[in-house]
Amino acid sequence: MNERLKKQIDFILEIDKEKNIFRQTHLSGHGRNENDAEHAWHMAIMAFLLQEYSNEPIDVARVMLMCLIHDVVEIDSGDTYAYDAEGLKTQKEREEKAKARIFSLLPDDQKSKLIELFDEFEDNKTPEAKFAHSLDNFQPLLLNNSNDGSDWVEHGVNEKQVYGRHSKTKEGSNTLFDVTDTILQDNINKGKIKRSET
Amino acid sequence: MNERLKKQIDFILEIDKEKNIFRQTHLSGHGRNENDAEHAWHMAIMAFLLQEYSNEPIDVARVMLMCLIHDVVEIDSGDTYAYDAEGLKTQKEREEKAKARIFSLLPDDQKSKLIELFDEFEDNKTPEAKFAHSLDNFQPLLLNNSNDGSDWVEHGVNEKQVYGRHSKTKEGSNTLFDVTDTILQDNINKGKIKRSET
Repeated sequence: MNERLKKQIDFILEIDKEKNIFRQTHLSGHGRNENDAEHAWHMAIMAFLLQEYSNEPIDVARVMLMCLIHDVVEIDSGDTYAYDAEGLKTQKEREEKAKARIFSLLPDDQKSKLIELFDEFEDNKTPEAKFAHSLDNFQPLLLNNSNDGSDWVEHGVNEKQVYGRHSKTKEGSNTLFDVTDTILQDNINKGKIKRSET
Repeated sequence: MNERLKKQIDFILEIDKEKNIFRQTHLSGHGRNENDAEHAWHMAIMAFLLQEYSNEPIDVARVMLMCLIHDVVEIDSGDTYAYDAEGLKTQKEREEKAKARIFSLLPDDQKSKLIELFDEFEDNKTPEAKFAHSLDNFQPLLLNNSNDGSDWVEHGVNEKQVYGRHSKTKEGSNTLFDVTDTILQDNINKGKIKRSET
């Protein structure tokens, strides 16, 4: 086998580990915790189906690939829960190290390409990155809402925290944010998300 | 929420169930059984990384989407193991029913688009479908080989059976078939795959 293909296969086997990185979100039907690979698969299909709701024109193939690889670094750094203030402080540093190690398994041209895409997602400035972020928020929201908000209840999350996170959805998609807002209000009214002190 | 978006969200929530459809393949590191969503995620990334080995020029975004949705029907019909002769007899009929039900959740235009893509994969005639099939074979082969062929051992699979399945890889990619052949010969020599009677 040539050296290039060997590197590609090494990377492919390495990312298999992403299937063992579990998130706080639970599968619909009050299922088990979801893992990163499943979450990325779901987001990529959503990117295709919901592309018409992006605020700006997007290269949907680029969004799909971005969705597929955006959590690869968590193989080393682990999943950082969106409302884990301590974990969030060191997240960037842990993920930078992981990025260097994991993408370096690939041939140089593909390493550069995937790091560029990963950084584009992290920087969240292009229409593609903004729409991918909308999906990164909207996907667990749909699952959690289908489970009567049980993930919010479990973590005692409040209104201010959820809006802090989900307001970013609006940068990628006003339409998906409108649905988000409806779902959040409904869960606040039902007591699944705590009202913030005013 | 408008009717169109409601349908799209219904479909998105429905396919969440694919994460509960488990395959015979085990994750690397002698892990648990893999599920269909993880398998599809892995294949879609492989499509991007290994596209240079397709025998014919391909629209890689189309292959990726094909990979992502190719097992959606198994939500209803279940996974049919590649070496389950009885199951294979009724597979087509079970999957046709599932296809009609699941894709009908979508708005008509997206229903048509995804069924077209699903059928293209099943018919296995276009360069895109052939390459997607190569990946559908090559992905579990890599995992199984990384686990010392334990899935072949568990099912007592023989040389004729594995070549029957994996020879199709050649239609999509001679290069990936060459690697496949090397891996299969190695596992036959190690006694992980039974030699066929001659």
